[in-house]
Amino acid sequence: MSLTIKSHLSSQFTLSFRKPVSKNLPSSNLYPLRTNSIYGANPLLLRFAMSSVSRRNDGGAKPIVKSSLIDPDGGVLVNLVVPESERGLKAGVAEGLPKVKLTKIDVEWVHVISEGWASPLKGFMREREYLQSLHFNSLRLESGAVVNMSLPIVLPIDDDTKDKIDKSADVGLVGPDGRLIGTLRSIEIYKHNKEERIARTWGTTAPGLPYVEEVITPAGDWLIGGDLEVLQPIKYNDGMDHYRLSPQQLRDEFDKRQADAVFAFQLRNPVHNGHALLMNDTRRRLLEMGYKNPILLLHPLGGFTKADDVPLDVRMEQHSKVLEDGVLDPETTIVAIFPSPMHYAGPTEVQWHAKSRINAGANFYIVGRDPAGMSHPTEKRDLYDPDHGKKVLSMAPGLEKLNILPFRVAAYDKVEKKMAFFDPSRGQDFLFISGTKMRTYARTGENPPNGFMCPGGWEVLVKYYKSLQAEEGAAASV
Amino acid sequence: MSLTIKSHLSSQFTLSFRKPVSKNLPSSNLYPLRTNSIYGANPLLLRFAMSSVSRRNDGGAKPIVKSSLIDPDGGVLVNLVVPESERGLKAGVAEGLPKVKLTKIDVEWVHVISEGWASPLKGFMREREYLQSLHFNSLRLESGAVVNMSLPIVLPIDDDTKDKIDKSADVGLVGPDGRLIGTLRSIEIYKHNKEERIARTWGTTAPGLPYVEEVITPAGDWLIGGDLEVLQPIKYNDGMDHYRLSPQQLRDEFDKRQADAVFAFQLRNPVHNGHALLMNDTRRRLLEMGYKNPILLLHPLGGFTKADDVPLDVRMEQHSKVLEDGVLDPETTIVAIFPSPMHYAGPTEVQWHAKSRINAGANFYIVGRDPAGMSHPTEKRDLYDPDHGKKVLSMAPGLEKLNILPFRVAAYDKVEKKMAFFDPSRGQDFLFISGTKMRTYARTGENPPNGFMCPGGWEVLVKYYKSLQAEEGAAASV
Repeated sequence: MSLTIKSHLSSQFTLSFRKPVSKNLPSSNLYPLRTNSIYGANPLLLRFAMSSVSRRNDGGAKPIVKSSLIDPDGGVLVNLVVPESERGLKAGVAEGLPKVKLTKIDVEWVHVISEGWASPLKGFMREREYLQSLHFNSLRLESGAVVNMSLPIVLPIDDDTKDKIDKSADVGLVGPDGRLIGTLRSIEIYKHNKEERIARTWGTTAPGLPYVEEVITPAGDWLIGGDLEVLQPIKYNDGMDHYRLSPQQLRDEFDKRQADAVFAFQLRNPVHNGHALLMNDTRRRLLEMGYKNPILLLHPLGGFTKADDVPLDVRMEQHSKVLEDGVLDPETTIVAIFPSPMHYAGPTEVQWHAKSRINAGANFYIVGRDPAGMSHPTEKRDLYDPDHGKKVLSMAPGLEKLNILPFRVAAYDKVEKKMAFFDPSRGQDFLFISGTKMRTYARTGENPPNGFMCPGGWEVLVKYYKSLQAEEGAAASV
Repeated sequence: MSLTIKSHLSSQFTLSFRKPVSKNLPSSNLYPLRTNSIYGANPLLLRFAMSSVSRRNDGGAKPIVKSSLIDPDGGVLVNLVVPESERGLKAGVAEGLPKVKLTKIDVEWVHVISEGWASPLKGFMREREYLQSLHFNSLRLESGAVVNMSLPIVLPIDDDTKDKIDKSADVGLVGPDGRLIGTLRSIEIYKHNKEERIARTWGTTAPGLPYVEEVITPAGDWLIGGDLEVLQPIKYNDGMDHYRLSPQQLRDEFDKRQADAVFAFQLRNPVHNGHALLMNDTRRRLLEMGYKNPILLLHPLGGFTKADDVPLDVRMEQHSKVLEDGVLDPETTIVAIFPSPMHYAGPTEVQWHAKSRINAGANFYIVGRDPAGMSHPTEKRDLYDPDHGKKVLSMAPGLEKLNILPFRVAAYDKVEKKMAFFDPSRGQDFLFISGTKMRTYARTGENPPNGFMCPGGWEVLVKYYKSLQAEEGAAASV
């Protein structure tokens, strides 16, 4: 099925590749992506892309340099997990320190930082990093290099915890279950101005932002930054830990498969055939450009998501059906979980989604309509301009070395009876199938239009939505 | 009087000079200013400062290169005023275009852009510039260089104007009095998401922000960007135009005086002896560092200010008294008006205040407590952390070439009976004299403590506040 879709739609699908970058080239060669090039209309950019491919081909039998398709931010992938041999000693020291109790979502951030997704960040942000993130969406390093850092990765504490810490230079970190997780060293405590953080991160302070309500509003009025050490790798024991590959494990896997290009696809929703169309077509284009073995990193987000998103376990089951049904090729696809929580902060957050994939070794990043977006919590509109995400991403400081692959929104083409890139000149032919719409299909037992999603994947969703309905029914009848 | 103050307080006044930068040095040598160095406690920075001075001295009779103490952003100072010989022709063309009617504050921005304060910006921002300003507080140029640009400099239009413009590539700009001012060419019209703009610029969406209420709330839902051309220099005919020196005129003046350092002081308040202390002491320090002829640019903001700020004409009269009374030395001081409107956007806006002074040729910028700050409009606290301004400024992209001079807040020392830098170890000895407090003194006919302000300057304020009181009295009795 995917083949039919591909062959039909490839002509509609134009990507604007930024010039694949050797790290020695000045960024001046890359800029600017003009507004009209967002969908690849700028021939200059395509020429850049093609010329870099010919250089690649000119090089002849140039060997693949392992784990260096793209350098991690700061040059070295951060790993903050204590070596096993030192664990006992470190745990002993940590036990003697004042403690900070972490929430479930704090632990997700500990996971993220400790494995180097946020490289070169080595712990929760101190104020200098926090301010740079908030105002500039980037950090300048001592070397003068700039890395992207669009979300404040911070640890809030309340007044009592601050008082308990007193003048201690280090603190121990304790999970929600009371287990010792690690330490934060050479700490700095500074004010948590929630209003300012929210306004600058989300571009709104309207009530109803999921991460704000879940994480920020209940949090303390202080932030504590410092250098993180984790006693052992973060595990969830939910049957999905084998999907949680660290950036280093992913880099190793890309090497093992001898990838010469890695393109990452971030998602927090079930994969439908529109997504598949895009991913397969991206691979085809990369092959056309001269890459021999492009690998897809299908990378669902595994941390906090809002209540009406499809839960992680259901999504993972759905994704595996998509591979089983042959919609995506397991030979050239790696499915793994990205452990970050979700902010739903649109153009600000999409930079984090891209930056963290650099650290995981992806040198191409796919971006679609309204990435990390949602509806405005109090007004009847999208919270973000659906095109701002890809525009901001194309200009973001520190992401120059990443090739951004913008794509048009896919929808169900009622004439061609398949998922296709939306063509505004015949807009009435297209059907947008939202999460709410999917839920309605499942609830009423109606099938979505043929060609929307592979049958195996759809079955997983029907099962999930029916269970939800049963729960809702049970709740209603109580 | 200023001499006494200087000699007494110089030991308390420690500046942290960033290394004066040759434009060929990589910025990596500059960074980071550590948190504890904000007040100059970091000996490394002082050493940097001193070593650069010895380099300067080592150079022996190195001639002063005119107008190049610091390059304007983008390398060339923007000047968008049409040459007189083309004025008639250009006016004719502009007359034939669809018109956009400007507000008083729009005209202030036209003034700012046309003279190059915002170099390399050549007109009101298009969406790419707007987004970079909003998200990154900076613009990346085609050369790859990054310049600071923290405030969106945009022109809003309403639906009707947008409809009238239709598909025209250019528009004419008309002042509030109906007079043709210039043109905006190769325009781009995009959405004016006010909520997002406000949240990202101010870090709050609380009602009561002066610029928001005056400018943004009443404005249209579209922004129009393009290349600006102005038919003739913007004049106000208010008796103060001779103070409104353009960046080029200021650079010429610095050359004429053979300045080898220019330190800018932005203010929107009357000058008291605390300010004078700081400015005089800065000059003394620069001389100590080896500069032969540091010139002070005393640079009051002349555009929109909030209703309870002292109006521009009163401030200019007060400033000239301060020079007459000998508190500041006219030989080494240039008083000029900075034509920008005021946002009161704290750490975001202070970057604009510094960046625009680079374009005017200042290579040192003085920053104090809570720059461009105000009280939170709905909560009983400062809107911004008073230290964030100088911290953000010290890390801001594109400002690496500017030497930032942070200073401590000055207050009236009741023991020493003069303005002095606040010493927290004997906080009870100090009296903070706010605008409100000044007003109370003037209203009650009471003099402020001796040594707070020179008598000539204080007289100007008494006259102003009394006239205000009379007006209020008249209004109350109506």
